[in-house]
Amino acid sequence: MQFLSDNSARVHPKVWEAMQAADAPDTPYDGDALSAQLDDAFGAVFGREVAVLWAATGTAANCLALATMVEPHGGVVCHLDSHIEGDECGAPGFYLHGAKLMLAGGDHAKLTVESVAGVLDAIRDDVHRVQAHAMSFTQASEDGCVYRPEELAALTGLARKRGLKTHMDGARFANATAFLGVPAAEACGDMDALSFGFVKNGAMSTEAVVFLDPALADVARWRRKRAGHLQSKGRFMAAQLLAMLDGDLWLANARAANAAAAHIADGAAERLLHPVEANEVFCRCSPPEREALRAQGFGFYDWGPDAARFVAAWDTREDHAVALGKAIAAL
Amino acid sequence: MQFLSDNSARVHPKVWEAMQAADAPDTPYDGDALSAQLDDAFGAVFGREVAVLWAATGTAANCLALATMVEPHGGVVCHLDSHIEGDECGAPGFYLHGAKLMLAGGDHAKLTVESVAGVLDAIRDDVHRVQAHAMSFTQASEDGCVYRPEELAALTGLARKRGLKTHMDGARFANATAFLGVPAAEACGDMDALSFGFVKNGAMSTEAVVFLDPALADVARWRRKRAGHLQSKGRFMAAQLLAMLDGDLWLANARAANAAAAHIADGAAERLLHPVEANEVFCRCSPPEREALRAQGFGFYDWGPDAARFVAAWDTREDHAVALGKAIAAL
Amino acid sequence: MQFLSDNSARVHPKVWEAMQAADAPDTPYDGDALSAQLDDAFGAVFGREVAVLWAATGTAANCLALATMVEPHGGVVCHLDSHIEGDECGAPGFYLHGAKLMLAGGDHAKLTVESVAGVLDAIRDDVHRVQAHAMSFTQASEDGCVYRPEELAALTGLARKRGLKTHMDGARFANATAFLGVPAAEACGDMDALSFGFVKNGAMSTEAVVFLDPALADVARWRRKRAGHLQSKGRFMAAQLLAMLDGDLWLANARAANAAAAHIADGAAERLLHPVEANEVFCRCSPPEREALRAQGFGFYDWGPDAARFVAAWDTREDHAVALGKAIAAL
Amino acid sequence: MQFLSDNSARVHPKVWEAMQAADAPDTPYDGDALSAQLDDAFGAVFGREVAVLWAATGTAANCLALATMVEPHGGVVCHLDSHIEGDECGAPGFYLHGAKLMLAGGDHAKLTVESVAGVLDAIRDDVHRVQAHAMSFTQASEDGCVYRPEELAALTGLARKRGLKTHMDGARFANATAFLGVPAAEACGDMDALSFGFVKNGAMSTEAVVFLDPALADVARWRRKRAGHLQSKGRFMAAQLLAMLDGDLWLANARAANAAAAHIADGAAERLLHPVEANEVFCRCSPPEREALRAQGFGFYDWGPDAARFVAAWDTREDHAVALGKAIAAL
Repeated sequence: MQFLSDNSARVHPKVWEAMQAADAPDTPYDGDALSAQLDDAFGAVFGREVAVLWAATGTAANCLALATMVEPHGGVVCHLDSHIEGDECGAPGFYLHGAKLMLAGGDHAKLTVESVAGVLDAIRDDVHRVQAHAMSFTQASEDGCVYRPEELAALTGLARKRGLKTHMDGARFANATAFLGVPAAEACGDMDALSFGFVKNGAMSTEAVVFLDPALADVARWRRKRAGHLQSKGRFMAAQLLAMLDGDLWLANARAANAAAAHIADGAAERLLHPVEANEVFCRCSPPEREALRAQGFGFYDWGPDAARFVAAWDTREDHAVALGKAIAAL
Repeated sequence: MQFLSDNSARVHPKVWEAMQAADAPDTPYDGDALSAQLDDAFGAVFGREVAVLWAATGTAANCLALATMVEPHGGVVCHLDSHIEGDECGAPGFYLHGAKLMLAGGDHAKLTVESVAGVLDAIRDDVHRVQAHAMSFTQASEDGCVYRPEELAALTGLARKRGLKTHMDGARFANATAFLGVPAAEACGDMDALSFGFVKNGAMSTEAVVFLDPALADVARWRRKRAGHLQSKGRFMAAQLLAMLDGDLWLANARAANAAAAHIADGAAERLLHPVEANEVFCRCSPPEREALRAQGFGFYDWGPDAARFVAAWDTREDHAVALGKAIAAL
Repeated sequence: MQFLSDNSARVHPKVWEAMQAADAPDTPYDGDALSAQLDDAFGAVFGREVAVLWAATGTAANCLALATMVEPHGGVVCHLDSHIEGDECGAPGFYLHGAKLMLAGGDHAKLTVESVAGVLDAIRDDVHRVQAHAMSFTQASEDGCVYRPEELAALTGLARKRGLKTHMDGARFANATAFLGVPAAEACGDMDALSFGFVKNGAMSTEAVVFLDPALADVARWRRKRAGHLQSKGRFMAAQLLAMLDGDLWLANARAANAAAAHIADGAAERLLHPVEANEVFCRCSPPEREALRAQGFGFYDWGPDAARFVAAWDTREDHAVALGKAIAAL
Repeated sequence: MQFLSDNSARVHPKVWEAMQAADAPDTPYDGDALSAQLDDAFGAVFGREVAVLWAATGTAANCLALATMVEPHGGVVCHLDSHIEGDECGAPGFYLHGAKLMLAGGDHAKLTVESVAGVLDAIRDDVHRVQAHAMSFTQASEDGCVYRPEELAALTGLARKRGLKTHMDGARFANATAFLGVPAAEACGDMDALSFGFVKNGAMSTEAVVFLDPALADVARWRRKRAGHLQSKGRFMAAQLLAMLDGDLWLANARAANAAAAHIADGAAERLLHPVEANEVFCRCSPPEREALRAQGFGFYDWGPDAARFVAAWDTREDHAVALGKAIAAL
């Protein structure tokens, strides 16, 4: 009973089908017929014109998006617990040629207007100081929490007022959207680009960089090739994305994962470190308690000395999640 | 009848099988059981200890390898027609942080001792000049030609004498090895790292960076993550590589592609721009002749104003290749 | 009566003399007779073999030093108020190709063993996290405070234990050494490289990068040229440094600046934000009080909403400093 | 009798005077009164509004200019013998974050419409190829030759047609302008930025980046600080530039150097490798001949196995130049 990571989950059968259906010769790179459908397919999801590039990882997607917004001498305001800050081995420093991440706080790994304004106000406007060029959000956050549309509106309003571009790391954007129960465009808010995650949600090896501002996509195309992310058999990447969008499979999968997380949370109510709004459950859990859970066959990561993280995925069995919830409750 | 590129070829059924067999939860990134087998599996191919990293593209593989050898203030001697120089949108400049490519000539896109020595001898040994740190070979070359083991020995001997590290871009290393009929180690020669290509030869989305000098792999691991190339479901990448090595599928596929190219070359003997030693046929072909071939259903790229390139793949049908050869002969 | 910055101070007459004496043809760049004397001249100051490069600014000196210690995928632990973090427009990100600054706290802008260990201990040892490669100190600190030799020993001991290289930003190293009254080697401690500042202390346009580990200097030479910092008339830079070392002019100038700062501090005892250990005085000072001081002819920078910074230089007149101290006391 | 390099020349007395006059406290960095005069002073030279930044070296000036024009995934067309290609240790690769230099030929180290068009036409317009973003000229060229205004017009016309920005490396722009006898604006042509050299022409340590398109200067200001080239006592740099412009000292000095070179050329007419149009004389000279000249007290650099380079400077004594010319003639 595995709750290590949604990265460990299986590939959805419809994704397999779509990949195999794509196994016929076509123009290499992104010149194939499937890649050509992406702008329209995602445009339908967001209700507007968008430009979409596939990329193999969330790290690449985040960095390719940010590279269109931030000059090497600029900076990106992000949460101090964000993935781009702590879990990408300095990839933004690489892709942005040394631009700076500017760290703001906020409960549950969510930026607040106050925390961001505090960072921005402290930047003296002269050539000795790196100036912010963009703001980056994580939806759902690293703590599994979800920005409400009005929170996003307040933050992007601040960004626009200060002349900043906006980016969303949506590794679990599907889970956030499912939680909010609003259209994708509202779960995203006023972003210039969204890294829309699929690998944790049923795909095998493809994320999407969705440029809500399509004019930014041109630079990203050059940078993607330059970063070695323009796969020659791109048709298999496009196929994954189209399968995930088809019939809103992405939402169905996310709902399943969220529901499984809710079952876990049911048994952990008094232990929760953060509200469970997506597919991750963070809770206090002492080393002996963790050992007890593992002895019952549950796999998960320690989260610091006295906590644990349990992640549900699209394919988490309901009975497993319920069992885990009960096991936690029984500790 | 498609001869556009081996990138257009299908994924081998055994690769599909292996990927689907890998579709069970395992540790993310490269912590899975399959990735753990790569060093040994490739070690068996090369008859020595090696360290192996998967990467999604040849561009990434080349750059990750070179990044372990070349400091930002250094340079890489390579052929002026090499892929790293002309077809990667400056990826080496990105991954090597501005290091320089130093271009040497040579027939059939192969370096020669003379051409390389000419480049090296012209570099004044002072701080105003970028100094060469590595030499990069392409096996088979961009013109579809193959370095013989003794040619490699002479060139790597020069490299060692001048203190240079060595790298091989082996996007079509399988085809070169099949042509030479020697063990992989001899087709590779004294390289510190080899970008061993599989995507053009039956895989879907995975190349291997083989560090013949395993000590170099450590830096590459950091750089791979930093470049967004550490896929979270790495088990599907390792599965592809293991399937390709199993029973020497890589060699069988390459032999098939080479054989198909030979059929094409049979009809183009007087038109060949380069000896046909791997799976590519470059020949003189006027615009009306190209039109005539296309009218017969053959797909291929123009190669400058008066030539054409035909690429055979592992799945090229023999009858198609024979038909193309005859059609060329009949022009 | 100017207390804006020691950057505003004049060039010492002996520096002028030395520069003019250097105004005869010699080999360009650093091939001149004066540059050739630097290793020995600084070696005498530090009582050991060193390798020395001139550089025009502290930013360049810091970055050239750090570039020899930190790989692009690594990081530098430094104080969150350090100059490299806040006042160099991201220069370390540029010179280190995207490496990360890792911020530690500590009173008076000085690192502590606890603050540094806290940063280091939080870095999970896996490929997703940037690892620290070096530790950077500022002597005297941005708050004008001085590390004692035993503090340095504890910190560099930690650095060595964790495998980190060490760098000191010594923009005001002279003032720190003068304050401590110990040999330069003790004021520096176990550093691999020191950015030894002279521009704030009587020179015109030259700092020194002193490699206490001379093996690191070779890479710095390439990087200096590559950064456009290898001036062709380098003899004028070497001349400045030699003049500053001659007869310990650097120490005499620093003592004068420190003494002037002490006069100011005499009148500000109850207002001090930090102990006055070098040539800077930071004290609480309300806007009306600042206005009152300016009305008396004193020039200085505001330091946040309710404080002021007064900097003394080698050429600050004693009567001016005394007057300022009295004016503050009279507020 | 030194003809090694104009870098070896002395600092002009008026430059010394101006520097010493600047030795009074003023706002640090480029906030001083002298730096504030630069835009107008150079605007008068070029007869138009310009924005001017000082920088310590030609390498820095070139790179700061180019960094405003070329994205990291782009390229710069330049002559294969240009300084940025061969003599700056890869500085453009550093400052432009891995952008590519694209080498064109042409006699006497001057680009031609044909050579540049050849380079540009060979760049396939797709994402696999680095695209040219700028064109860089050297005036006078590395071979001491001068672009005529009509040559510049043809080349910049091509640049504009292809959407390229334009940059001039004017390390010896003064000598070129003096040779042409036209206003500076005509010697420069339709450039977006000019690296206007002074160090070889009587200054000590300051070049000027002249933005003929002032809108580009903003980015350069950030990049200058980020590169450690924003000297804190910038007033001494501005003073040098103003002294060089005052009374057209730059032109007078250049004329003197050119005249001295002409004296040398008088004796070398049959040996010249390139027309002598500025202050450099390149001529065939066998090793024994070089030895003979050195035995007579002449200093100069070998230029390959059978040639020599003699450089005259603003302070070259006429009798020395005449003597050298005669000595060559007598070989």
